[in-house]
Amino acid sequence: MTTKIGVFPGSFDPFTKGHEAVVLKSLDLFDQVIIAIGVNQQKKYLFNLDKRISHIESIFHGDMGVSIQEFNTLTVDFCKKKNANHIIRGLRNSQDFEYEKSIAHMNFDLEGIETVFFLTDKNHSAISSSIVREIYKNNGSIDQFVTKPQLLV
Amino acid sequence: MTTKIGVFPGSFDPFTKGHEAVVLKSLDLFDQVIIAIGVNQQKKYLFNLDKRISHIESIFHGDMGVSIQEFNTLTVDFCKKKNANHIIRGLRNSQDFEYEKSIAHMNFDLEGIETVFFLTDKNHSAISSSIVREIYKNNGSIDQFVTKPQLLV
Amino acid sequence: MTTKIGVFPGSFDPFTKGHEAVVLKSLDLFDQVIIAIGVNQQKKYLFNLDKRISHIESIFHGDMGVSIQEFNTLTVDFCKKKNANHIIRGLRNSQDFEYEKSIAHMNFDLEGIETVFFLTDKNHSAISSSIVREIYKNNGSIDQFVTKPQLLV
Amino acid sequence: MTTKIGVFPGSFDPFTKGHEAVVLKSLDLFDQVIIAIGVNQQKKYLFNLDKRISHIESIFHGDMGVSIQEFNTLTVDFCKKKNANHIIRGLRNSQDFEYEKSIAHMNFDLEGIETVFFLTDKNHSAISSSIVREIYKNNGSIDQFVTKPQLLV
Amino acid sequence: MTTKIGVFPGSFDPFTKGHEAVVLKSLDLFDQVIIAIGVNQQKKYLFNLDKRISHIESIFHGDMGVSIQEFNTLTVDFCKKKNANHIIRGLRNSQDFEYEKSIAHMNFDLEGIETVFFLTDKNHSAISSSIVREIYKNNGSIDQFVTKPQLLV
Amino acid sequence: MTTKIGVFPGSFDPFTKGHEAVVLKSLDLFDQVIIAIGVNQQKKYLFNLDKRISHIESIFHGDMGVSIQEFNTLTVDFCKKKNANHIIRGLRNSQDFEYEKSIAHMNFDLEGIETVFFLTDKNHSAISSSIVREIYKNNGSIDQFVTKPQLLV
Repeated sequence: MTTKIGVFPGSFDPFTKGHEAVVLKSLDLFDQVIIAIGVNQQKKYLFNLDKRISHIESIFHGDMGVSIQEFNTLTVDFCKKKNANHIIRGLRNSQDFEYEKSIAHMNFDLEGIETVFFLTDKNHSAISSSIVREIYKNNGSIDQFVTKPQLLV
Repeated sequence: MTTKIGVFPGSFDPFTKGHEAVVLKSLDLFDQVIIAIGVNQQKKYLFNLDKRISHIESIFHGDMGVSIQEFNTLTVDFCKKKNANHIIRGLRNSQDFEYEKSIAHMNFDLEGIETVFFLTDKNHSAISSSIVREIYKNNGSIDQFVTKPQLLV
Repeated sequence: MTTKIGVFPGSFDPFTKGHEAVVLKSLDLFDQVIIAIGVNQQKKYLFNLDKRISHIESIFHGDMGVSIQEFNTLTVDFCKKKNANHIIRGLRNSQDFEYEKSIAHMNFDLEGIETVFFLTDKNHSAISSSIVREIYKNNGSIDQFVTKPQLLV
Repeated sequence: MTTKIGVFPGSFDPFTKGHEAVVLKSLDLFDQVIIAIGVNQQKKYLFNLDKRISHIESIFHGDMGVSIQEFNTLTVDFCKKKNANHIIRGLRNSQDFEYEKSIAHMNFDLEGIETVFFLTDKNHSAISSSIVREIYKNNGSIDQFVTKPQLLV
Repeated sequence: MTTKIGVFPGSFDPFTKGHEAVVLKSLDLFDQVIIAIGVNQQKKYLFNLDKRISHIESIFHGDMGVSIQEFNTLTVDFCKKKNANHIIRGLRNSQDFEYEKSIAHMNFDLEGIETVFFLTDKNHSAISSSIVREIYKNNGSIDQFVTKPQLLV
Repeated sequence: MTTKIGVFPGSFDPFTKGHEAVVLKSLDLFDQVIIAIGVNQQKKYLFNLDKRISHIESIFHGDMGVSIQEFNTLTVDFCKKKNANHIIRGLRNSQDFEYEKSIAHMNFDLEGIETVFFLTDKNHSAISSSIVREIYKNNGSIDQFVTKPQLLV
């Protein structure tokens, strides 16, 4: 039987408990989950790439099924290179859904890559990286929303 | 490694090309997909149960990964009985999404069963069993929307 | 130049100011607008067919571009019979939209009939026939929502 | 200062933890909250009216700000009779929202009654009376979703 | 009885008739409404802070229940400082709703602050500060959408 | 009979097959369709204006009903100048809808200009200019989404 590889793409600025839950759910269906950090030269990030990588690594430390990689191409091109047939995405609400649907159809049209969706848990449905960044910039506590937040400082 | 079993529940009155595509996508991630026909004594169906079962059987004839079964309990209780940890659902639009999200959270709360979502193909995004029934009742052709429609007559 | 005929289908139980505004907007683009009352034997209506027809007739009395007709087939079959290439629909909110989108794609798939959408006016965006029926059944006044309501009594 | 009275209307078949949370939140802003059980002769209920009333009474036993009453008129007419200027509603998701928005505008148009909205808690966002009824009818446990469920049996 | 204080946060660039209606509705339920202008150094505003403040002041001139204040912290921290237990928000459509829902849950998770929602009036449902800015920049008239627009020039 | 003129506004950066389909559908109802390219000095475009114009011209080459024009005013002011009573817009999903609805009501409030909506075809429902730009910038093929893409290089 072939190895099932799923790619979970994002900028993860930062990686939240919502993202974490999606990865854990994916591991029930995929042999390997690649957390793929998209690098876009024109975008500004709050946390630098090295910090984001080491943060995620420490969360999944020792889990053989998870790897963290960066990419700077189209997501579908990265999937092809990694022999992954599926993209993994989390859905929080219907606004997420409409956006993800367009991207997913486009990815299928481009390279035949399917997208699998998981719901975020109810407790994580209000978390987004952008809201977490806002709290962080205003000196609020992000402990409820991010595992091992001290590694991001 | 444990066998991955997914339950795809519905009334399938009738089973459309949209449903069919969801099953085919599921077979990439699950070893066994159970098409589970919910039987509700208080609901009226256009196509009787035997016809619906034989129709679906003829579509997946010979595919060892697919089985068709009926159930008259809560979906999560059926999943438990079948050792299935996942429910499979297709999403067409954001209205589907909100409804499915409530049901999925409830199923998780009740028995810890996760739901995995696939998008319907663009070509099938307008198909629903209720619209197909409407066409059928008005003597329209359902050939575009249902595989082997002659088996339903 | 060919005559542009648009079909505005519905059960119009009753015909509201929202429906009326859609017809008036349609007349800017169509030479003839057919208000097509779908008749479904299995459905119960609050206002009987004759009353609904005479009510609508009195509203558009003397407007040569508007006709009122009943039909009991698929909407697209009625359009074909009338040489109409377009279905006309009003949109109030995003829930309307998702439903109308599925129906419109289906109608295009069946017979190549396009659907044109108008927005309801802001003042009419809360009106639906089902809410008007509810008010009527509870002896509330429907005067704000229906033109010439006395013709429905 | 005038007494602030809010009406929380519904069929409450049954009254869930989601409803309960909305009432508790309302008590921060209103002096009196009337839980108003709409009685519609044409609708079938799973739990009879007496049981629904005694169930809700036992939940808010001793809270002077809460009363439970039945009504069989338009909601706005009931509000007028009770000198209430506000209707209270909970919102779970965007589908709820579109529906509630139409009703709220209609209620304002009819009698100038405003509607105030609270969000359901994240933990209750998947609960609806209809899903709870489904679980109950299938002999599932509704303990997570309803306070003092034994009073409904 | 304790004083009920609600915070209505925003950038109000500019303060529209939609915002105004939300404040007026809030005054029925709160003893004090604080219009809280968020100041973000990294954001560019079309109207400067002094102009926005004096514009809003002139609209509510003499209304003892309304005060206008600026803040540059998390909204929940501002609420705490002001002894306000509620955030007030207006809802226009379902896109607003999904966004507001995430923010509201986050604010509750951070500091237990509840959010109360009012609908914008039908006549104001199309107004947003960003659309008003667009009209203003293109020399269109904003008189329909903003009270006392001359104070913004 | 007066000439029916419709304005289809956008930045068309680039003009996709989705846009193309909307224009073709509009030609069934309008005598003249003006593809109106909005020019905003503060916005950066991926394809320069000349290239966008010549690209669209080559697509509708010889179609007497279509003209391509640029404008840098409010859309409604451009419509007035061109004696156009209608704006034409395509709708892909419910997120589009909410946004377009606000703009359309605003345009009606400002100058009484109505908006007519067409659905994008199912095959084009995932196409947006922003996604096409993303693919282009990442050296992916945009041939499926844009007619005559070589004219954009």
